[in-house]
Amino acid sequence: MANGNHQAVIKPPPSPSPLRNSKFFQVIVADNYFTGSKDNLSKWIGHPRFELIRHVGTIKTNVIGTLNMLGLAKRVGARILLTSTSEVYGDPLVHPQTEDYWGNVNPIGVRSCYDEGKRVAETLMFDYHRQHGIEIRIARIFNTYGPRMNIDDGRVVSNFIAQALRGESLTVQAPGTQTRSFCYVSDMVDGLMRLMEGDNTGPINVGNPGEFTMMELAETVKELIDPEVKLVVTENTPDDPRQRKPDISKAKELLGWEPKVSLRDGLPLMEEDFRRRLGVPKK
Amino acid sequence: MANGNHQAVIKPPPSPSPLRNSKFFQVIVADNYFTGSKDNLSKWIGHPRFELIRHVGTIKTNVIGTLNMLGLAKRVGARILLTSTSEVYGDPLVHPQTEDYWGNVNPIGVRSCYDEGKRVAETLMFDYHRQHGIEIRIARIFNTYGPRMNIDDGRVVSNFIAQALRGESLTVQAPGTQTRSFCYVSDMVDGLMRLMEGDNTGPINVGNPGEFTMMELAETVKELIDPEVKLVVTENTPDDPRQRKPDISKAKELLGWEPKVSLRDGLPLMEEDFRRRLGVPKK
Repeated sequence: MANGNHQAVIKPPPSPSPLRNSKFFQVIVADNYFTGSKDNLSKWIGHPRFELIRHVGTIKTNVIGTLNMLGLAKRVGARILLTSTSEVYGDPLVHPQTEDYWGNVNPIGVRSCYDEGKRVAETLMFDYHRQHGIEIRIARIFNTYGPRMNIDDGRVVSNFIAQALRGESLTVQAPGTQTRSFCYVSDMVDGLMRLMEGDNTGPINVGNPGEFTMMELAETVKELIDPEVKLVVTENTPDDPRQRKPDISKAKELLGWEPKVSLRDGLPLMEEDFRRRLGVPKK
Repeated sequence: MANGNHQAVIKPPPSPSPLRNSKFFQVIVADNYFTGSKDNLSKWIGHPRFELIRHVGTIKTNVIGTLNMLGLAKRVGARILLTSTSEVYGDPLVHPQTEDYWGNVNPIGVRSCYDEGKRVAETLMFDYHRQHGIEIRIARIFNTYGPRMNIDDGRVVSNFIAQALRGESLTVQAPGTQTRSFCYVSDMVDGLMRLMEGDNTGPINVGNPGEFTMMELAETVKELIDPEVKLVVTENTPDDPRQRKPDISKAKELLGWEPKVSLRDGLPLMEEDFRRRLGVPKK
């Protein structure tokens, strides 16, 4: 997923950064397009310093993919960033989640492949760091949203916006009181760049601590897009975390970062993009 | 590790078992010999239905190895057993550990590669079971000991016995109050065979619920082998679990299994084997 408004990406940081100023970057994207789209990358295809690899499988991506990238980083002496996830905390018993919390993950559940895959990717990163001195950075990304998200990827924000624009009922998974925290994509990109350019390996939580229940999110989208649509509560998947909220003390202290875009400011930017792609003009 | 006394392996079960009676087994062993020895397999090398593969790496073994074996099981329609581990519980906050406990594992610690590797192997087993209908069996093995263990593999029982036989001080890792439960190898093999022949996927704990502190274990070995040796407390590795004890209700109920060999009966059998291999005859 990329930010439709690229300001956060290209805006230079307060102090000059050798990373951002380099003219010698090579960008290699590996994606299986499960929740993304090749269209988002169309402007870069053909660029001499851009390369695209289609790669598949949740656990295979996290393990074999991470191993391959660590091998490459070791060979060329590169710094490597793992975009890990709040899912490593599973259904957390500590709230909000700090980076030193070990998590509460079901190893054999229907959604375990993602959680356990990311955990073992973190393990591999630290093993290579300790054994080979590789410069690693680990971000634990909490729920993120913004323009260019896959319309039908099943994530809750894109679901609600697409449903509201189509005049369908918003499907809130039971019980509706489970909470998530949503970070706008430009804030996320800014946090990731600060982490990559800083001196701390992490793991560092990057996310917006503003906490909403799924029912509140549905109400907000309904109010914003179409007050006529209905909310219906549907069955949930097993092991869906009841609450998830980052403690971002570490990001504030070590990266000087905190999110700037509130949900009420970010949702209309996403709505605008979804309207264009779904062909639903504003009334 | 194999049982020096093979009775538990070849003794037929109370009721006839198609698995044990089959004349058509092919045995393929994959081992990296990190904590085992090729010598233990020497009697089988050259057997027409035996094959040996040297395979390396902790996370690679658990992930790529498990993926490969699941692919093989899928292709030939075989039932597959994963020997998982009590380490999936990490430093448990529930005591004794039941199979539905999700564990407390540090994803980025120095000993995480084993724990997280086994957890993700369990995840893969259940994903293949759910997606491809493969018949899986998962045993969570707690500490096991017996003849033919690697003398210098760093496991606490082999360490203590080798040290006592060499007249060295027994090195107890601090604080010495951490507990483990030790299952004799013939009990373990019997449990694994019952699991493989039964109808339950698991995960099922297989281990001896008799709980000993490391200090008690050292005292027992000292008393058994050489009352003259000293006990010294040494620094511990980070994240060493404070206690570990299986709840074996599920194994009792579903497999009709419980361990028969006590630590006081099993240790002398291991001592005898270590004496022979170290060339230290009984006084």
